[in-house]
This record gives sequence, C-alpha cells and structure tokens, in this order.
Amino acid sequence: MDGSDNAHHGPQDRLAEALAPDMAAVNAIIRARMASEHAPRIPEVTAHLIEAGGKRIRPMLVLAAAHICGYPARNPGGEDHQKLAATVEFIHTATLLHDDVVDESAQRRGRPTANLLWDNKSSVLVGDYLFARAFQLMVEPGSLRVLDILANASATIAEGEVLQLTAARDLATTEDTYIRVVRGKTAALFSAATESGAEIAGATPDQVRALYTYGDALGIAFQIADDLLDYGGTSAVIGKNTGDDFRERKLTLPLIKAVAKADAEEQAFWTRVIAKGDQHEGDLEIALSLMERHGALAAARADALTWAATARAALAPLPDHPLRAILGDLADFVVSRIA
Amino acid sequence: MDGSDNAHHGPQDRLAEALAPDMAAVNAIIRARMASEHAPRIPEVTAHLIEAGGKRIRPMLVLAAAHICGYPARNPGGEDHQKLAATVEFIHTATLLHDDVVDESAQRRGRPTANLLWDNKSSVLVGDYLFARAFQLMVEPGSLRVLDILANASATIAEGEVLQLTAARDLATTEDTYIRVVRGKTAALFSAATESGAEIAGATPDQVRALYTYGDALGIAFQIADDLLDYGGTSAVIGKNTGDDFRERKLTLPLIKAVAKADAEEQAFWTRVIAKGDQHEGDLEIALSLMERHGALAAARADALTWAATARAALAPLPDHPLRAILGDLADFVVSRIA
Repeated sequence: MDGSDNAHHGPQDRLAEALAPDMAAVNAIIRARMASEHAPRIPEVTAHLIEAGGKRIRPMLVLAAAHICGYPARNPGGEDHQKLAATVEFIHTATLLHDDVVDESAQRRGRPTANLLWDNKSSVLVGDYLFARAFQLMVEPGSLRVLDILANASATIAEGEVLQLTAARDLATTEDTYIRVVRGKTAALFSAATESGAEIAGATPDQVRALYTYGDALGIAFQIADDLLDYGGTSAVIGKNTGDDFRERKLTLPLIKAVAKADAEEQAFWTRVIAKGDQHEGDLEIALSLMERHGALAAARADALTWAATARAALAPLPDHPLRAILGDLADFVVSRIA
Repeated sequence: MDGSDNAHHGPQDRLAEALAPDMAAVNAIIRARMASEHAPRIPEVTAHLIEAGGKRIRPMLVLAAAHICGYPARNPGGEDHQKLAATVEFIHTATLLHDDVVDESAQRRGRPTANLLWDNKSSVLVGDYLFARAFQLMVEPGSLRVLDILANASATIAEGEVLQLTAARDLATTEDTYIRVVRGKTAALFSAATESGAEIAGATPDQVRALYTYGDALGIAFQIADDLLDYGGTSAVIGKNTGDDFRERKLTLPLIKAVAKADAEEQAFWTRVIAKGDQHEGDLEIALSLMERHGALAAARADALTWAATARAALAPLPDHPLRAILGDLADFVVSRIA
C-alpha cells in the first residue's frame, strides 16, 4: 500500500497500484451485477463503457476513503467498500448513457439516424437498469446513512443536469449556478464516493465531513480545470480541441467571468455569439482576447487552485495513511494541467 | 372508511373515497418534493403528468395495504405510508417520461422535430430527477426492507423494459417472456406498492407475502386484459383503437398463443406481418380470424381471469377490513372489461 517508491507515477497510477486487489474484486462485482439472464443486450451495451478502461477514479475514491478510515481492517473480509465502489461506477455509467441521449440529440440538429434512435432507446433503458442495479447493491451493506448520502447525490446530479440544460446559452448565468451545475456534473458523485467510503468504515462525523469536503472540492477543481482547458488553459493558445464549449454556447466559468465585466460593445458580442448563436470565423479569437483583457482565464485558474487547496487541506483531520498522501497529491494533480 | 353505501361506484372510486384524506396528504408531498428551487423547469414538465388526474392506483395500493395491516392505527400520526405512496407515484411518472423517449422515437420514424428533441432531453433528465426524489423519499421511513423491495422492483421494471425492446417483433417470444415484460411494465410496481405498504405497517411475513402476491397478480390480470382489448376483447369486433399492438408488431399474449399453434401457412403470415413488418389492408382481420381459429383470445381471457382470481384469493390471510373488500372487488373489476 506504500506508494512512495512509485513517486515518479502520477497519483492516479499510484492509487490504482495501491488499490489493485480491491479493484479486481470491484470489477468482478461489476461484471456479475451487469449480467441479465433474460436481457442479454444489457451487458452488450454497458460492457464497452465499463470495461474500456475509464480511469475508475470514483470507485477508487470510495476504496481509498474506506481504507484511510480503517475499513476493512476493523472488519476483516468486509466487502461493503467494494460494493459501494461498484455502485458509484454503475451510477456514473448510467449518467453517461443518459448524457448520450441528451448530447447526441443536440449534435445532430434534429435529424438522428435510425441507428441513433435505437441507441437512444438502449441508452435510456439500460441507464435505468444500471441505476436499479446500483440501487440493489447499495442497499446490501444495510447502512441507512450511506443510502441517504447516495440519494442526496442522485438528486444533486439530476438537478444539476436539468440546470445545465436550462442555463445553456443564458448570459445571465451566475458563478453560483455554474458551481451548482459542476456539483451535479462531477463533484456530487466524487463527494458521495468519499463520504460513503468513510461512512461504511464507521468513521467519526468529523472524518466523514472531511472526506465529503475533499471529494466536493476535488470534483469542482477538476471540472474548472477541464472547462479552462477547453479555452486552451491559461495560455490562450488555440489547439485542436479549443473552443468546443464556445461553439456549443456553454456558460462555463471563464465565459461567465468575462461576461460579468463586459462593456456595452462586448455585451453585444456575447449576445450575438452565445445567446443568439450567430458565430463566424474569428469569433473564438475575439472571445479569448476578451477573456484575456478581463483576466477571466487567470481568475478561473485561481479558483481551481483554491478548490484544490481546499481539497488537500480537508484531509488534515484524517488518520495518517499512505492513501491519504496520494489523495493529497491527487488534488494538486487535477489542477497541474492548468499550472 | 366503509364503502358499502357506495357499492354503485366502481371499486376504484370507492378506494379513492375511502382514501381521500390520505391522498390529499400524498398530493401535498408530491407537490412539495417535485419543486426545485434552482431548476423551475422541473415542476413545469412533471406537473401536467402528475396533476392531470391519472387514476393514482399505485399510491392508493400502498395506502390500502398499510391500512389493512394496521398502519397508521398502531402509529398515530405516522406519515410513512403517505411518503411511500408519493414514492411509487414518482417512480411511475419517471418511467412514463422515459417511455416517452422510447415510444416517440419509434413513432416518428427517425425524423423528430426540434421540439421533440427538447422533450427527449427533458424527459430523460426530469425522469432521472423524479427517480432521485423518489429515492430520497423512500429512505426517510428508515426501513431497509422497504428499500430492498423498491430496489428489486426497479430492477424488474428496467429489465422488463429492455426485454420488451429486444422481444419486439420476435416471433420466438414465449409466454414466459411475455409475463416478464408484463411484470416490468405493470405488475412489479403494483406488487412493490402493496408489499411495501404491508412492510411499513409492520405486517407479519405471511401478510407481506399475501399483499405481494395480490399486487403481482392484479398487475398481470390488468395488463393481459389491456392487451386483449387491443384486439377488441373477446368479441373480435374491430373498433377505433383495435390493432395498435398489431401494427406496432408487439408480441402480446393473444398473438403469442396464436403463433404457438400456427401451421406452416399461418407461420408464413406471421413472419410477413410481424417479423418483417410487411402489413397490408385486411391483415388485421386475418390475424383476428387466426386468433379465433385457435381460441387464442378466449385462452388469453381465461389467463386474465385466473390471475384475477389469484389476486382475490391472496387477500384471504389478511385482517378483515373494508379496504380488503374493495381490493377484492378491484381484482374482478380489472378483468370486467373483457367479461
């Protein structure tokens, strides 16, 4: 479990190495619970999503939080942390499937193919199936507190997704709304992972709260960094994938900050390209120069670093543990991409 | 609570009258929990579905089961039965929203309007929101058994919906598969309603099992009757809405029974109209005559009556209660449409 000799790897690799035996068990649970005797199409649809090597950060957060708080050391042979790890991965996969429906619809401008429609059906129903499987799994450890945590996370996720839909293209979107959307999109499942891991380990209320705060801040830092990278990070150099959010007229933090400081002429520009969607060649460059002018990219970067520092600091009240050190490094790592 | 002077009403009306005060409380819970401070679109989308007077049979089943088993008589002021009633209505509404995505896609033959796409997004995400709200509500009574019941019902529902998708147009569909689909579509939430109502009331295991069996059999009887009516009931008179399932190539019980007895020539007919979907004027009449020839409609009707009798008989071990009598009548009522 000591990752110190692997310091040349990133913290995610060190986490994966430290948790490899646990993750093998989690993968076995996932495969077993994905199966449907009567509807073999279900594992077909989910397998590529679950098997095809996502980073598995969410289940690893559950496992790390549980280990740091003494599980299963105090309950030898306990598998509840593995069941919860599989649970959050199922919930994550289900939200990806449902996001597909939402995103694909938008991209194809009202003319989906028959194949896309079949995918829509499968995405909705198989997503529901994974939610239901997650629900069955999470009941098994018999902890009402854990169920409460996951129920509240589900509501935050769903509300955030609806909010993202209604806030899209709305220049009046505030930073507060943005943070709510980000909690729904990323941070709520991160914090539910770490909080429920602590809870299942029988951690003290202070430790549970600390791991909630860690997961929440980690998720927000990660998502702000991601949104910043969509504008090329802080360098404002236009790369291959720069500007996707701009073209999709998403109100992410750099844009919200620039709009908040816009004069009348700039306001007219934002109204044209974001509210009305009337975009021409060169508009992305103008948007970036306005963000630079108002220090929007630097300010968004500073916010991300503050959230990462909050995540790291939250770990202080937890027992000393090699995994605690890795989680601390992970907080720095998620913002290292925009350093 | 005595419905005897209202015997001229149908059992659903008598149920609604007996449970009116409870249902007012359930409606208040539904309105309160549907609200989203930050995403006002959510109640917009759900209000017409929930408010527009469905029969509310599912929440009434929860309440009736709880009352018959002595709740809240033994826990004065208890509201857990009302919370569970709101829970099942939320789950039902969420499945309706997700069904919309699946059904609309099929109907419009690959060319949905922009409006339909917006509806698809809203349907998926607001459906997820209602599931999450249901999840929060069902945790509140603090009964792990109830959570287990609802988790299993959710899995049965989701698996049944996927199965329905994959079994569509498949002439090899068996009666066993049909019953699985029907459980997912209707009976699983009926039985979860009655079982969880009994459980929350602290009923004996025998009573809990009895109310599970009642809900399961009631749901199956109801759905078979519904599928039979789509072929005009037992009279085989073609009415305005006759044949929708035939045109959509759904493998419902009358069709499955006729296919099972088909000779080579009939098999070729079914392959053309159902498997290949090559339907012409007069084909519905041919289908009906084949069903008549093999007694498929009469046999499906007999099955529905058997399930209704099972439902009524299941009530025997329960305490004598006016609501028990109404539930018994309800079992007969759901098949009276095909009498």
